[in-house]
Amino acid sequence: MKITDVEIICFGYRSRLVADREGHSHPGPEHDAQMSLTRIVTDEGVDGYCFGGSPAALDAVRGAIVGEDPLQRERIWQRLRNFQRLNQTLYSDQQISVIDQALWDLAGRYTGLPVYKLMGGYRDVVPAYASTMVGDDIPGGLDTPEHYADFAEACIAQGYPALKLHTWMPPYGRDPKRDVAACAAVRKRVGPDIPLMLDSHHDYSRKEALYIGRALEELDFHWFEEPMNEASMSSYIWLTEQLDITVVGPETAGGMFYTRAEWIVNHASDVSRYNVSLGGLTAMMKAVHLCEAHGVGLEVHGGGHGNLHALGAMGIAGEYYERGLLHPFYDYEASQPWFNTRVDAIDSQGNIHLPQTPGLGLDINWDYINTHRL
Amino acid sequence: MKITDVEIICFGYRSRLVADREGHSHPGPEHDAQMSLTRIVTDEGVDGYCFGGSPAALDAVRGAIVGEDPLQRERIWQRLRNFQRLNQTLYSDQQISVIDQALWDLAGRYTGLPVYKLMGGYRDVVPAYASTMVGDDIPGGLDTPEHYADFAEACIAQGYPALKLHTWMPPYGRDPKRDVAACAAVRKRVGPDIPLMLDSHHDYSRKEALYIGRALEELDFHWFEEPMNEASMSSYIWLTEQLDITVVGPETAGGMFYTRAEWIVNHASDVSRYNVSLGGLTAMMKAVHLCEAHGVGLEVHGGGHGNLHALGAMGIAGEYYERGLLHPFYDYEASQPWFNTRVDAIDSQGNIHLPQTPGLGLDINWDYINTHRL
Repeated sequence: MKITDVEIICFGYRSRLVADREGHSHPGPEHDAQMSLTRIVTDEGVDGYCFGGSPAALDAVRGAIVGEDPLQRERIWQRLRNFQRLNQTLYSDQQISVIDQALWDLAGRYTGLPVYKLMGGYRDVVPAYASTMVGDDIPGGLDTPEHYADFAEACIAQGYPALKLHTWMPPYGRDPKRDVAACAAVRKRVGPDIPLMLDSHHDYSRKEALYIGRALEELDFHWFEEPMNEASMSSYIWLTEQLDITVVGPETAGGMFYTRAEWIVNHASDVSRYNVSLGGLTAMMKAVHLCEAHGVGLEVHGGGHGNLHALGAMGIAGEYYERGLLHPFYDYEASQPWFNTRVDAIDSQGNIHLPQTPGLGLDINWDYINTHRL
Repeated sequence: MKITDVEIICFGYRSRLVADREGHSHPGPEHDAQMSLTRIVTDEGVDGYCFGGSPAALDAVRGAIVGEDPLQRERIWQRLRNFQRLNQTLYSDQQISVIDQALWDLAGRYTGLPVYKLMGGYRDVVPAYASTMVGDDIPGGLDTPEHYADFAEACIAQGYPALKLHTWMPPYGRDPKRDVAACAAVRKRVGPDIPLMLDSHHDYSRKEALYIGRALEELDFHWFEEPMNEASMSSYIWLTEQLDITVVGPETAGGMFYTRAEWIVNHASDVSRYNVSLGGLTAMMKAVHLCEAHGVGLEVHGGGHGNLHALGAMGIAGEYYERGLLHPFYDYEASQPWFNTRVDAIDSQGNIHLPQTPGLGLDINWDYINTHRL
């Protein structure tokens, strides 16, 4: 089997997410937005798909993989990673991820297996946590500690077994005391038995991070994410040494799983973190296996098909699927009209079920995409 | 799909390998020997096979995996590893390996793919090195440095691009000077351009190991394996610090890939080492990914189907397939009559080609097995 072409299908949709100037999303007025879908075409009639992919990188990607055997994922992955060094835009972690996930999807469609079973499945069901958007100034939204508590209560009532707050970040301020107040209000409202996590502003000082971490220990929080710049691994070594609460990371630090190895060796966090967008499922399983060899857990950052299949295949925790980002004024369930069904439909116990259809389990709404094609 | 049964087929064959009292094999008079073949049976008519498997463990293995989905390899692997703690005989690394490899074989047969492509292939061809038996006292065998040189010359003439000596071990003595003399004789005979490796007696002192290592540096050897007891990681940290030659290990140390992580973190070797018999392909790829994250190579110990598929799938070196063990008085090519064709048939350039048939690519001679069934 040979790859004969790569295609990137661009289509429009109406979005109600608006990014603030730091890049975080909030509910806002409906507006036009664009999405892309990468398709890898073969000479045997089996294609692979993954949402995402940069049209600007299309020629480069074609040049890199057309003519290759799509089942030789490791060879293609190693090649793209090598090309990345001098072409960080064309072969970004995200772009490699889309290609790699499309190849896994293709292999699943070719064999008739869902990707997590192709990788060697571990579980069919993963509990989810509700993951809030970052704080804002929308009245009745995520603008006060009490409104976080209102929203947390609603999420738990809906069946989520756990919840993570993203608190306020610039341009909505940086304020450790307000972060702690939101965490305290949520803990008080949901009671002592619900696991709670915090992902705060990512550029606090060591002193501020320690203050928040100590408060989270008092509030019996489950973990604490990225309160400081991850470029300073030393800061995380210091913080992890000080705190009893589980420090999870790195999340946004570059260097894929190689960086996770450095953090493990240097005891810079208690639990590692990875996301399929950092080089795809091939890279993610390398991170999982690295962590497993060192007795370190790995919490999966973000949701979607790839992260869910990784959670289904990994033999270590990953305790939760991160579902969101959620907001009281945003209809998460209706936010991806290019799917007929969401991959992360949640049951009444707050669980996500691994897709059993071949490949990534993308239930693509072709009518929608073709109608909105650009 | 469900596992409905596990079967272990035992059959006899005529062997010309005789184990010395330390367990190393040498050519000897033909005698009766036994082999086993594990078969995992499913309710969908697809079975998985792997040679090996202990009849004494059959009931335990059946209890552990019958009723499971054979594609959930990670779940089964984690369960067997957990059971191992209090049942090291029933769930030995080797026994887990046979089950895991049979599950990979089954998945390959189910999907129509060779295992290395199921894992995400990296290469279709791997160079082999000739790996000698350990030294002996057989006249004209591997009894003198000059006879090692004779045999090395014959192997290189046959097309092997590299060669590894196993030198003398008890009961044939322990003698660093004789080891070095054999290495020097081989180097002199094959010339300066052939990569040579040494796997010596495994219980030398630090001083003896350093003496040999320094001599191998002078002889421009490619790597040096396991000259000391691997239970003393400190000895390897010390040796690796002293020597420039690549120290490869651990090989026989227990603890699967977890132990490889400890050796990497402690700089106890330059290149890691793994064998599919240490928990199967599932465990082996965890070791590969661990090494990759740390920028460490992994040389594969031993040959056979599983090790070959791992070499086909791994994106890091593994430079060579270990072919053997070989001896001037032993017909390696004819040594496995239970196969119609050897998986490691070597071409004129000394390369092994990955099998392209579904699963592990076992070309089983059922006539032979059925005729010799016990």
